[in-house]
Amino acid sequence: MADWHPTAYRTHTLGEIQERGADLVGKEVTVCGFMEANRGKGAICFVDLRDGTGKLQVFLKGDAIGEESLDVVQRMTRESTLQFTGIVAQKRPPKLKEGESPPPPAYEVVANGVEVLTRANVPLPLGITDTVSIGLDTRLDNRFLDLRRAHVNAMFTLRARVLQYGREHLISEGFKEINTPKIIASASEGGTNLFPMMYFDTPAFLSQSPQLYKQLAVLGGMERVFEIGPAFRAENHDTYRHLNEFISFDIEAAWMTDEDVMGVQERMIHHIWKCVAENDQEHIDTVNEYRASQELEPISVDVPSLPFPRIDYCEAIQMIQDAGEEIQWGDDIDSSHCDIIAAKYPGFHFLPRWPMEMKP
Amino acid sequence: MADWHPTAYRTHTLGEIQERGADLVGKEVTVCGFMEANRGKGAICFVDLRDGTGKLQVFLKGDAIGEESLDVVQRMTRESTLQFTGIVAQKRPPKLKEGESPPPPAYEVVANGVEVLTRANVPLPLGITDTVSIGLDTRLDNRFLDLRRAHVNAMFTLRARVLQYGREHLISEGFKEINTPKIIASASEGGTNLFPMMYFDTPAFLSQSPQLYKQLAVLGGMERVFEIGPAFRAENHDTYRHLNEFISFDIEAAWMTDEDVMGVQERMIHHIWKCVAENDQEHIDTVNEYRASQELEPISVDVPSLPFPRIDYCEAIQMIQDAGEEIQWGDDIDSSHCDIIAAKYPGFHFLPRWPMEMKP
Repeated sequence: MADWHPTAYRTHTLGEIQERGADLVGKEVTVCGFMEANRGKGAICFVDLRDGTGKLQVFLKGDAIGEESLDVVQRMTRESTLQFTGIVAQKRPPKLKEGESPPPPAYEVVANGVEVLTRANVPLPLGITDTVSIGLDTRLDNRFLDLRRAHVNAMFTLRARVLQYGREHLISEGFKEINTPKIIASASEGGTNLFPMMYFDTPAFLSQSPQLYKQLAVLGGMERVFEIGPAFRAENHDTYRHLNEFISFDIEAAWMTDEDVMGVQERMIHHIWKCVAENDQEHIDTVNEYRASQELEPISVDVPSLPFPRIDYCEAIQMIQDAGEEIQWGDDIDSSHCDIIAAKYPGFHFLPRWPMEMKP
Repeated sequence: MADWHPTAYRTHTLGEIQERGADLVGKEVTVCGFMEANRGKGAICFVDLRDGTGKLQVFLKGDAIGEESLDVVQRMTRESTLQFTGIVAQKRPPKLKEGESPPPPAYEVVANGVEVLTRANVPLPLGITDTVSIGLDTRLDNRFLDLRRAHVNAMFTLRARVLQYGREHLISEGFKEINTPKIIASASEGGTNLFPMMYFDTPAFLSQSPQLYKQLAVLGGMERVFEIGPAFRAENHDTYRHLNEFISFDIEAAWMTDEDVMGVQERMIHHIWKCVAENDQEHIDTVNEYRASQELEPISVDVPSLPFPRIDYCEAIQMIQDAGEEIQWGDDIDSSHCDIIAAKYPGFHFLPRWPMEMKP
């Protein structure tokens, strides 16, 4: 669990109170968050508060917090940011049917003070907890709100974990992280379009790969290096396999064959999937709650077995020909062909050993 | 210790044999490396071999390896890459003077096979183990050889550690890693020059900061985020405080004051220095061996105490005025002024709370 350190705005995160509630009962805390909803019109009010670590209910009573503050909160717009001070309490357990076992204890904050940090405009351009679909334009025009939706936020968290676990694995195999220049004087890989630019008075390009720099580092005795950073490709394609700017996991190592390099890759992917399966199921569940609301199949983290299948180029060509496609030895294997291969090998697999003439 | 995994080219790294030599004595290994030197002209030869993990002596005897192979190695150029197969043996302990305690056991490989992977051209444009100074042009024109010099290589290793420890600390405080676009449509920070470029038919710029994207992520409920990535600044300055392309540690967090942010920074720096001091002294020693050869003072890793001093802008202006400089409240504090402050506060320190008008 992260060590959040108290800040001037709050003593605890909501996640800490959920997790360590039993230790905190009776203690005064100050918390901050976005208001998802409030309920209760009379002398009491319940607020569903959310920060980046979790959710918590805040309970307000007019006689404890004052009628004026109660009124402010009751009239507050959703997604406003609020700061509450109050006492941690165990929530009243739910009524159980006969034979039902009680859920684990849950906690709330009974407020004695509130501060409005920002009031959200109404109406919101998109709902944070609604399950209705939202157009992509609306999402991108209001990305800060889109990101607050639980499944979108969870995907960014999972992405951060992939970076963390991938790096962790590479370092465990002796790889050292480097950063290579992104403004370069000439192309480092053939066959890929470059973005031209001016470096003051000198023509230059954006780097499409750390290739030459990685090789230089390895020739320089750095043994094993990696970079996780942006690469730029001025390809005028509009497919889900092309991006003009992307983050690449790029490795280079001394004294390895293609088989050794595939070994690094498959062990890294295995480590990442294994760690996600062990540590991050809550974020997968969050994504699946959304998917269920959209009547989509749930995703699952299936840790791949090692080694991944190696499908030689020759075998791949045969497989594509067997599926009735026009392809000859020496041709490129395009994405529709990959789908044919994926039908037989649905998990991770390698397609090594292409004809030398294609990538001289 | 890293798990290096054997490759098609070698079963062990030189570092592994140094470290686990006692377990490996009598076992056959295959190793690769750069040849730093060879000694012995007759029926025997000693090779100093170096890879990215350490150094090892390889011992060759004509009757074990064959006269022809021995001759090849004896005529081999320095910095060629060689592969040796042989048996791990404990080196004969050095002769001791009376009362001298014996050094820890050291290991070597007694070769029974050699493969020349690449032969280095002669003469080398720069020496790898020489202590003579080399001009910057020669170093940059032959950067792969320059990097093989122990102290240069050590600095890249230390740099990789700083990235690792810094990330580790930020993750421990709940920060999630993000990557933000580097091709952007408009400036994200005022007052800094941008590199213009064309994104296909659209004018664009290289990003000078992840600022707006980080803020968007935090407003999106990601709570605490960081990016370690390139930033581009088209500033026409030639000082050691300006770089046109650099890697920034960039953080953003919800519900923090300037004091809280300084806390994150100083704890991170403290953690990095502490880890370097605990784990990486060997690399500092390598740098200092070089520095000693150049009659330079050794560097040391002094773990800074917490908190770092905060020097208010007003106090800083006073200090600079006291040193006899012409400066008024509201002026910028330039690098020569910083040197005056550093004379009194030689360690890490903050200069917070500048007049709002300077950075509106």
